[in-house]
Amino acid sequence: MPEDVAFSSFEMDWDRETRTGVAEAVLCGHKSPAQIDAMVAAAQGAGRRLLLTRLSQEGFAALGAGTRALLDYEAGSGTAVLGERLAASPIPGIGIVAAGTSDMPVAMEAARSLTFHGYAAPIIADIGVAGLWRLMRRIEEIRRFDVVIAAAGMEGALFSVLAGLIDAPVVAVPTSVGYGVSFGGNSALHAALASCAPGLVVVNIDNGFGAAAAAIKMLRIGRRR
Amino acid sequence: MPEDVAFSSFEMDWDRETRTGVAEAVLCGHKSPAQIDAMVAAAQGAGRRLLLTRLSQEGFAALGAGTRALLDYEAGSGTAVLGERLAASPIPGIGIVAAGTSDMPVAMEAARSLTFHGYAAPIIADIGVAGLWRLMRRIEEIRRFDVVIAAAGMEGALFSVLAGLIDAPVVAVPTSVGYGVSFGGNSALHAALASCAPGLVVVNIDNGFGAAAAAIKMLRIGRRR
Amino acid sequence: MPEDVAFSSFEMDWDRETRTGVAEAVLCGHKSPAQIDAMVAAAQGAGRRLLLTRLSQEGFAALGAGTRALLDYEAGSGTAVLGERLAASPIPGIGIVAAGTSDMPVAMEAARSLTFHGYAAPIIADIGVAGLWRLMRRIEEIRRFDVVIAAAGMEGALFSVLAGLIDAPVVAVPTSVGYGVSFGGNSALHAALASCAPGLVVVNIDNGFGAAAAAIKMLRIGRRR
Amino acid sequence: MPEDVAFSSFEMDWDRETRTGVAEAVLCGHKSPAQIDAMVAAAQGAGRRLLLTRLSQEGFAALGAGTRALLDYEAGSGTAVLGERLAASPIPGIGIVAAGTSDMPVAMEAARSLTFHGYAAPIIADIGVAGLWRLMRRIEEIRRFDVVIAAAGMEGALFSVLAGLIDAPVVAVPTSVGYGVSFGGNSALHAALASCAPGLVVVNIDNGFGAAAAAIKMLRIGRRR
Amino acid sequence: MPEDVAFSSFEMDWDRETRTGVAEAVLCGHKSPAQIDAMVAAAQGAGRRLLLTRLSQEGFAALGAGTRALLDYEAGSGTAVLGERLAASPIPGIGIVAAGTSDMPVAMEAARSLTFHGYAAPIIADIGVAGLWRLMRRIEEIRRFDVVIAAAGMEGALFSVLAGLIDAPVVAVPTSVGYGVSFGGNSALHAALASCAPGLVVVNIDNGFGAAAAAIKMLRIGRRR
Amino acid sequence: MPEDVAFSSFEMDWDRETRTGVAEAVLCGHKSPAQIDAMVAAAQGAGRRLLLTRLSQEGFAALGAGTRALLDYEAGSGTAVLGERLAASPIPGIGIVAAGTSDMPVAMEAARSLTFHGYAAPIIADIGVAGLWRLMRRIEEIRRFDVVIAAAGMEGALFSVLAGLIDAPVVAVPTSVGYGVSFGGNSALHAALASCAPGLVVVNIDNGFGAAAAAIKMLRIGRRR
Amino acid sequence: MPEDVAFSSFEMDWDRETRTGVAEAVLCGHKSPAQIDAMVAAAQGAGRRLLLTRLSQEGFAALGAGTRALLDYEAGSGTAVLGERLAASPIPGIGIVAAGTSDMPVAMEAARSLTFHGYAAPIIADIGVAGLWRLMRRIEEIRRFDVVIAAAGMEGALFSVLAGLIDAPVVAVPTSVGYGVSFGGNSALHAALASCAPGLVVVNIDNGFGAAAAAIKMLRIGRRR
Amino acid sequence: MPEDVAFSSFEMDWDRETRTGVAEAVLCGHKSPAQIDAMVAAAQGAGRRLLLTRLSQEGFAALGAGTRALLDYEAGSGTAVLGERLAASPIPGIGIVAAGTSDMPVAMEAARSLTFHGYAAPIIADIGVAGLWRLMRRIEEIRRFDVVIAAAGMEGALFSVLAGLIDAPVVAVPTSVGYGVSFGGNSALHAALASCAPGLVVVNIDNGFGAAAAAIKMLRIGRRR
Repeated sequence: MPEDVAFSSFEMDWDRETRTGVAEAVLCGHKSPAQIDAMVAAAQGAGRRLLLTRLSQEGFAALGAGTRALLDYEAGSGTAVLGERLAASPIPGIGIVAAGTSDMPVAMEAARSLTFHGYAAPIIADIGVAGLWRLMRRIEEIRRFDVVIAAAGMEGALFSVLAGLIDAPVVAVPTSVGYGVSFGGNSALHAALASCAPGLVVVNIDNGFGAAAAAIKMLRIGRRR
Repeated sequence: MPEDVAFSSFEMDWDRETRTGVAEAVLCGHKSPAQIDAMVAAAQGAGRRLLLTRLSQEGFAALGAGTRALLDYEAGSGTAVLGERLAASPIPGIGIVAAGTSDMPVAMEAARSLTFHGYAAPIIADIGVAGLWRLMRRIEEIRRFDVVIAAAGMEGALFSVLAGLIDAPVVAVPTSVGYGVSFGGNSALHAALASCAPGLVVVNIDNGFGAAAAAIKMLRIGRRR
Repeated sequence: MPEDVAFSSFEMDWDRETRTGVAEAVLCGHKSPAQIDAMVAAAQGAGRRLLLTRLSQEGFAALGAGTRALLDYEAGSGTAVLGERLAASPIPGIGIVAAGTSDMPVAMEAARSLTFHGYAAPIIADIGVAGLWRLMRRIEEIRRFDVVIAAAGMEGALFSVLAGLIDAPVVAVPTSVGYGVSFGGNSALHAALASCAPGLVVVNIDNGFGAAAAAIKMLRIGRRR
Repeated sequence: MPEDVAFSSFEMDWDRETRTGVAEAVLCGHKSPAQIDAMVAAAQGAGRRLLLTRLSQEGFAALGAGTRALLDYEAGSGTAVLGERLAASPIPGIGIVAAGTSDMPVAMEAARSLTFHGYAAPIIADIGVAGLWRLMRRIEEIRRFDVVIAAAGMEGALFSVLAGLIDAPVVAVPTSVGYGVSFGGNSALHAALASCAPGLVVVNIDNGFGAAAAAIKMLRIGRRR
Repeated sequence: MPEDVAFSSFEMDWDRETRTGVAEAVLCGHKSPAQIDAMVAAAQGAGRRLLLTRLSQEGFAALGAGTRALLDYEAGSGTAVLGERLAASPIPGIGIVAAGTSDMPVAMEAARSLTFHGYAAPIIADIGVAGLWRLMRRIEEIRRFDVVIAAAGMEGALFSVLAGLIDAPVVAVPTSVGYGVSFGGNSALHAALASCAPGLVVVNIDNGFGAAAAAIKMLRIGRRR
Repeated sequence: MPEDVAFSSFEMDWDRETRTGVAEAVLCGHKSPAQIDAMVAAAQGAGRRLLLTRLSQEGFAALGAGTRALLDYEAGSGTAVLGERLAASPIPGIGIVAAGTSDMPVAMEAARSLTFHGYAAPIIADIGVAGLWRLMRRIEEIRRFDVVIAAAGMEGALFSVLAGLIDAPVVAVPTSVGYGVSFGGNSALHAALASCAPGLVVVNIDNGFGAAAAAIKMLRIGRRR
Repeated sequence: MPEDVAFSSFEMDWDRETRTGVAEAVLCGHKSPAQIDAMVAAAQGAGRRLLLTRLSQEGFAALGAGTRALLDYEAGSGTAVLGERLAASPIPGIGIVAAGTSDMPVAMEAARSLTFHGYAAPIIADIGVAGLWRLMRRIEEIRRFDVVIAAAGMEGALFSVLAGLIDAPVVAVPTSVGYGVSFGGNSALHAALASCAPGLVVVNIDNGFGAAAAAIKMLRIGRRR
Repeated sequence: MPEDVAFSSFEMDWDRETRTGVAEAVLCGHKSPAQIDAMVAAAQGAGRRLLLTRLSQEGFAALGAGTRALLDYEAGSGTAVLGERLAASPIPGIGIVAAGTSDMPVAMEAARSLTFHGYAAPIIADIGVAGLWRLMRRIEEIRRFDVVIAAAGMEGALFSVLAGLIDAPVVAVPTSVGYGVSFGGNSALHAALASCAPGLVVVNIDNGFGAAAAAIKMLRIGRRR
């Protein structure tokens, strides 16, 4: 069984964007360089744009030179994009808030996922609740968004405070920031899920892409109706 | 320190519906009958409608007779409503699906929460993926909703399958249905969060009220714009 | 081996208050009625005051009639006191805040433990962060305390917000209030421990007595110096 | 106590294939290079074929040159084989399905284990349920197998959907693919065990060899009868 | 939303036996008496046989008198059967072993599930490995089965010992027997999954029905070929 | 399959005492009254003495009247003995210490298990380390034992302190005493296992019988040599 | 979205020391070198002193040369200080004890945090309870402190013993020292929280800075009054 | 606070061997090279023998050249010894069994700890229960030991089988061998603790030193009497 079995063993779900409103993205974490090279080549061959997530700097460096030349890679968020930026002006309505500087990579994964799909992605950073004035100073700005993505780690107290202050849906993205009983983001996750603020919804730890996908789906509701 | 300290120790957040789009509800699970009696009396005195959740049959029976007479209690979902039903015709757009019969109490908590706020709440039940034809037979009907609340326990496979088939946002409510490694709903919760279907969002185990609150907030986006 | 082996098998640490500043209390949860009866009798015989905690209504009812007659039992907090109230005016400086109505039993265990030792124990209740105005309205009042005990369950976001707003030490008591991923108070516990607000200290879930003991020790520092 | 104590400290269970239908394999994960060298030499000396699993590229490189020359090593699956391929045509009946590209290493461990024992091992890849059409398009092909090995990570929804569609036994191999609440494969494992589809059986996370062994034992039933 | 919503909210998957080889069973644990009554009535009306599992004595007593009269209820295993016993002589080949007396309810759930489908279900009991002679004395008898279901709790050592001694597939059913670190069957579950004996397959804790379903599917392989 | 299958489904390991030095005991927790009745009858019929553990007061009351008349039941420890007390004077050398009054039931299970086998079982109670003087006052007495069984719950600090003070082997029995992060005895268990005091050995939570069995085996070493 | 988004995305809470008594510190664990460089530059530009924690030797080496030149870095504790040492003589009253040599890095993080704020920070090391004489020999010295910070890992028995011997508040810092069931410090954490010694308070695992912050807040009580 | 604070911050418990029968060992896992160098120098200066455990090859290489020259280091077990081997002939009575080759490092840590204290330490390896004949073939040899140390990972079934076959005390050392649900040795640990074989005692995962210490204490009982 030669190595190339792995290379031919994928089937892109190109139709997913039509079916669900969000394109399939390549989650690179557990894929070999050869698998990723093959997927990028397939997309390139099919004339498709492609978003890659969870691609570390080491992972990017291990890709083939041809693949690397095709990709717009951004190290902070671990994302790469194949294909042109969308020409149309970005669709507004979604805002991203990040509790602390350490949460920026996840916030940026969300932002890159939004811009890939043609949405604006402003980030309001460093508004953690230990210094509540930082959040309160910008709350009116946050209230103007139709959907808010919030990234926070450690104890995740930002989620409840924020969701209690605004009427837009809040998509909580717990981050793996912290140590000890932060448990790799699980305490922030549990804080978001157990929140006393109704209407908060949650995605997996560090899942900036998933939060963006959810926000896009929510914003599209208005256009369906 | 007399018992009545507890009775006077609450402060209703009547303004929450204006501020966040969803009214405060009374989560009854850890409250004493006297505390609940006092809250209902306060709402009645203030001329407010009130939703109570997680009120077991034993808990309802332990309330004062006067309180019980004021409430529209529904045992299956453990919910009670103080005040008139809303006169306006229910706002359509939100659908509820339940994987199995055992998930109905949670689905009904969501439905009761929606109707309390004036929204229609149709339930499509028993479409678990072990018999996929049951889901596929009704998928077109489900696709017409703007937001879908999905309740499922055990392994929660319904969440991923459903979210891969429709473009509306899906709010997953894991239920505590199952035994052994279902871990009181945690396996369904993890399945929803780790789903390979992007855009799925999640609330706490058995939190039908939270799912309804999230769906309402999403549906209101269209009206904001 | 007769039953009465258990009755004679304890040794009260009467000296503990002198040695550590806080008296030994009887934690009733795992003790048989006969064991508790014997301990109360021993304290009565020695002319000692005694605090009992985690004594449920069923547990109190199962005690001997003579024991019950000696005790000042308060059901909401599950505490009982043997002996006279302290005559001196209560020592001020410690305040208790409770996030929600459901956290009152724990707040009251702390309060009863404080008054047993001769300290004032004002409770400020229902100031959870989902309605932040409730906390902000009373923050100046809270700032006047030298030590603040905070009881909160569910996601425990109150701990971080509070500790970021005041300069007195905050003793967090996570409560077992909540369901699903609240995990019987563990999520609130982790939120307190992982808090981004420095200087927050934490005791065991539902441990109102421990929080009171810690607050007393802190307040005594001033007198040592 | 010299290092060579470890080298002589094994006793191959050569009789296991006769006794249980499946040969003993060398699980390399926790063994030192010297231990593995010694085992391969022992098998070579005894004229035995040998299968090695969980042998990383670093692990293989650390083996003695003589050992490496004897082994047919395949990096993707981390497996190595000592001895000739079986001459007979492979026994058909067992099929392998993999939810995504990232699950291929585990699927290939199963495939290599099957071919070592003389069984055919076709792999049907990338049929995860987020794009259900990929599974449905190949379901008739899958239905022709007598036993199906299914490898899936993340939320493991494939297991339930598949087991509800076919009548052959399904052996679920959860994979450690995913992040956050995937918990290194445990969420997929729990999904398989808590599945609402009866008759699904499960092996340890990433245990492609174990799945192959189980499938072989099942296929042999027909020959016993 | 009246109570009867729940009663009409199910859809039996009558076709499942044809599709997968094993009939749908009603898992009663989380269902209300009214829901179970309705399901039994539906099966009776459709002329179908029906197996109910996890039906406690209290649960059975709460059913309607009409329902109870229709059911063959067996308290030890918590199972009930609607409809005639199958006339044909039971199909041999599957054996059940139980480590200890406390594992009998699970072994009997497996046995009742097998006989419902027309299979013989001999039980060999009390062969736990702490007294290995008990297992060894009966090993030849066990070796004659084509598939063996093994029920064991506590540390589940029986699974590995048994699977190392016979060549038939072993389906491990961990039971929730034990205390302390038995963790409600999870330690036995982990022992089965982490076993050093290849080819062992596992179902959920206490899932006697699932083990029977798996064994039936395995035995049917021979007939397919 | 009639109920009586369960009754005949056990096989006592009468030979265990000869083989391992400790007799088989009946762990009653998961057994039905009929199963226990049958086992006692079998022992009585065979002229054997028998120890039963984890038999609650409710469980004892549910036994047949004939069984109850045969047993010497002790409620505090949940143990029962069939047959005469051993005539010989108890063998000295094993001591039991209990950290607090709440640990007495486990200490007494150990004591009853020792006396059943003919060993003396003195208990030194209420020596928890929060009042270290209680332990230090009796340390010389404890040092005279050849083996010490220590029962403690909550944080289990007694184990390390004790094992650092004496040279006899210490068998730690963590108890399920405590609440919150005591986790039903798991924190005491982990404290015993992670102890910095070498030579401490541990048995399952609340397993007084197991501790006694271990102590007996240790004491017998001297007689073997 | 260029990399520099991350650099400008922080907002220092310079006011925190005034508001809460303890200055904001930079937790370096999850921050990029560029983020830390920017924060140090901002503090330097604003004429502020700054404390950095959890800065590994690799992390320090990756900072810009200009940043490194500004910092007083101490590798053992992973802390760095920007700005002059405080001229005033250190404020006495707080003592630090460490159970073992391996706990020194955490003890030193606490010490560095204290000295940064102008407090004395004596460390009493290697007084673990397995050799109780080491603690007892220095207990009088420890009793003279107004607040005691205790760092211990493994089973954390020191916390309970110490808190039972002195009347000053004890701030427990569990450390991640140990292996196996030490669970990265969680067993020591649970031991501290479940302690039978009242008044013990706890901070996150390895959180020496948090312990120092808490101790400072406690010591300041005296000055408030 | 200079680095050398750490170096002087230890206090050897030289008296421990006299007090408890087992000498203090240096657990190297969390100690810096400088700390270990200092401890070895202190022991050398005091004319003491010293045992070091959990010292990896990287850790040994990082020690000072002078330290390395003093130590007898054995890489497989990660142990080092300072000082002469004991001249007296080793004391017999303790045997070590290891389930598989991968368990040898832990078995060898036990063996090195025994020989350091002057005891013989024969190892019987590779007798895992998946091939039961390997154990049975050597059981008579094992029965001759007075105390048996058993090292096993994965599912740990060896512990129960062994303890049911012999009358000597068995000290179970779970090892971190395995993957997936082996959970770093926790499943083997739970198997040992939940064992149905009475009298089995357990130490921490991979704690070969602790097992040796326990065995030595047991063997010394005979000499006390």
